[in-house]
Amino acid sequence: MKYQQINDNNRSFIEKNPELTTPFVVIDTDEVVCNWQRLKQAFSYAQCFYSLKANPANEILLTLKAQGSYFDVASIYEIEQCIALGIPGKYLHYGNTIKKYSDIQTAFKYGVQSFIFDSQMELDKLAKAAPNAKVYARMATTGQGAAWSLSEKFGGDIDSVFNLLIAAKKQGLQPWGISFHVGSQQLLAEAWKKSIAEAAQIRARLQTEGIKLHALNIGGGFPAAYQNNTPDIEVFSQTIKAALLSHGMMDLQIILEPGRYIVASAGILQSEVILVRHNEKSIHPHWVYLDVGVYNGLTESCAIILQVITHKDDCSPMMDTVLAGPTCDSVDIIAKGHTFQLPNSLTYGDRVFMLNAGAYTTSYSTVNFNGFPPLKQYFVGQYAKYK
Amino acid sequence: MKYQQINDNNRSFIEKNPELTTPFVVIDTDEVVCNWQRLKQAFSYAQCFYSLKANPANEILLTLKAQGSYFDVASIYEIEQCIALGIPGKYLHYGNTIKKYSDIQTAFKYGVQSFIFDSQMELDKLAKAAPNAKVYARMATTGQGAAWSLSEKFGGDIDSVFNLLIAAKKQGLQPWGISFHVGSQQLLAEAWKKSIAEAAQIRARLQTEGIKLHALNIGGGFPAAYQNNTPDIEVFSQTIKAALLSHGMMDLQIILEPGRYIVASAGILQSEVILVRHNEKSIHPHWVYLDVGVYNGLTESCAIILQVITHKDDCSPMMDTVLAGPTCDSVDIIAKGHTFQLPNSLTYGDRVFMLNAGAYTTSYSTVNFNGFPPLKQYFVGQYAKYK
Repeated sequence: MKYQQINDNNRSFIEKNPELTTPFVVIDTDEVVCNWQRLKQAFSYAQCFYSLKANPANEILLTLKAQGSYFDVASIYEIEQCIALGIPGKYLHYGNTIKKYSDIQTAFKYGVQSFIFDSQMELDKLAKAAPNAKVYARMATTGQGAAWSLSEKFGGDIDSVFNLLIAAKKQGLQPWGISFHVGSQQLLAEAWKKSIAEAAQIRARLQTEGIKLHALNIGGGFPAAYQNNTPDIEVFSQTIKAALLSHGMMDLQIILEPGRYIVASAGILQSEVILVRHNEKSIHPHWVYLDVGVYNGLTESCAIILQVITHKDDCSPMMDTVLAGPTCDSVDIIAKGHTFQLPNSLTYGDRVFMLNAGAYTTSYSTVNFNGFPPLKQYFVGQYAKYK
Repeated sequence: MKYQQINDNNRSFIEKNPELTTPFVVIDTDEVVCNWQRLKQAFSYAQCFYSLKANPANEILLTLKAQGSYFDVASIYEIEQCIALGIPGKYLHYGNTIKKYSDIQTAFKYGVQSFIFDSQMELDKLAKAAPNAKVYARMATTGQGAAWSLSEKFGGDIDSVFNLLIAAKKQGLQPWGISFHVGSQQLLAEAWKKSIAEAAQIRARLQTEGIKLHALNIGGGFPAAYQNNTPDIEVFSQTIKAALLSHGMMDLQIILEPGRYIVASAGILQSEVILVRHNEKSIHPHWVYLDVGVYNGLTESCAIILQVITHKDDCSPMMDTVLAGPTCDSVDIIAKGHTFQLPNSLTYGDRVFMLNAGAYTTSYSTVNFNGFPPLKQYFVGQYAKYK
């Protein structure tokens, strides 16, 4: 039965709490640890910085802290959250290329030592607000192969990264490394190859200028298994290792920023059917309206389609179903353009479950669009006690 | 000077509070009242229900309550907010066609008497949870002419609305009226005409079945003056009145659900430049990164472009500028595809102001994507004391 695909900890929580108001996500912290360990084993040659943005819950940060994780942070607010949890500044990597001057100052005071940048103005701020810090220049990528490209706003070309690292040294900073990100939910292990080759070129050019790099940050993007044919993490680690070796880059400190891979599979989203309706205007007229939608957790559904299961999957004929959220807004259609195969007997009050919902759901929730509160989150597993 | 376009109350607040952390919105409650009065005067023949979703701040609800407004609510959470503010249930209209059974029950207990629906299943829930309530069947529209269409998820055709109202009577509800919504930021006054004609047809058919309608809810959608050529509200009231008269519908109670029109112009969004960067990958390579973006207030910017002004507008050459938000996400580009004319001397720390930012900004904010807090809001004007 499909429902059995939900892991034991999450299923047990759901069954013990039938009265909880939906929608909510249950996160199994044991699965978080399991994903972490598998990643660490596959990338034994790298240092891993969990990317808070995927799911910044205290419970997850403390679970990963206990595993020895470092953390990739995107804002001063994430830094303050880590500091408040007893994670020292030197374990943090300020990975956003767009930082307020005062936020750099504060981060530096907290002991944050490494910063990413991709422009002269950011460099000027860093030189002044974080003198002698370790800086990484961000290289652009195409984002090809990724469900959620991260290329458009960030990163320079080879010449620009080279020049920025030269300038960094002149301005009293430590030109520590190069960083890039191939895009989130990246399905092609090959995607890293081109950037590694480019980084090797830049490194060689810098060497002739007397600048020795120490690290290469190859970003995150490692995919969650939303689809059955998602390559295993070992495929990525091996392909990347081969590329690093062939370009003589394995002597550098290799840095990873996993997010989605660590938390997605740990989360189950539970929702309730509010309405089933024949929508005569639609090519697919069978519509099911849920209490979760793009404004309270499923912002990513335009690019990332979660598997949806119900208790009725094995006892009713399935039919093409459009899923929509609960708000008075036409944009609030889940995975617009896609239909889900769902039982034709679904009715209001029925529960539906979305698998792999631990990443980029709760944090993307709106604060109260249409009055609906942000998506709630509960924690199970042996690390759930952390708060 | 462009900066003088900011109204006195908002400008005075901004100038008296130079140290406030950006981004934030300042709402002038006097302007809210002014918009309300102008709307009421133009639509002297209608009853106005302020649509909370545009901006559900307590200060705004209490300002409008003092003006005698009714309220259009989209969720049980909005109902509970109104009740907590002393707004009685009978002043509320539950305008969402997608409601949980338990939420209908609770609303009915609070004294909410009128409900919108557009499907047989919703009718079944209403008949059971809110017996004898006044119900409105929602008619579909094309959404043509609107910046933000609301047609895809909601509303039936003429036959379906007719049949639903017949069924409503059979199931012990009061078939009170017909509702429709021509889409948000609707620039064509003509857009209402077709729906009024259709509603008249349905009404005539119902009459032959012995059902007498009492009301016509013509929705909201009245535009804010984001652009200079936006038609005045009087153009809408006159065109709509002419249509109502020509179809013999003026004897019905006419109901309006304004949102954006009431609050948009009352709000100024103040933001800070974080970074200016040459983005060689972009057709328009001059990029300015702000501390506000699509995840903390500007979700609508894909369809609704706010006017952006700065202190430097009159003293620097202007240039094509791409605006982007502060998060590590490529989606976070403001009004993607559009360039803003901004001074080439902008640098980090400079303030920028977005006009007409009082609607659909704060409530669309994410709860903490990348750690950034939801967009803050302050209130000025003589009604600002309400909380």
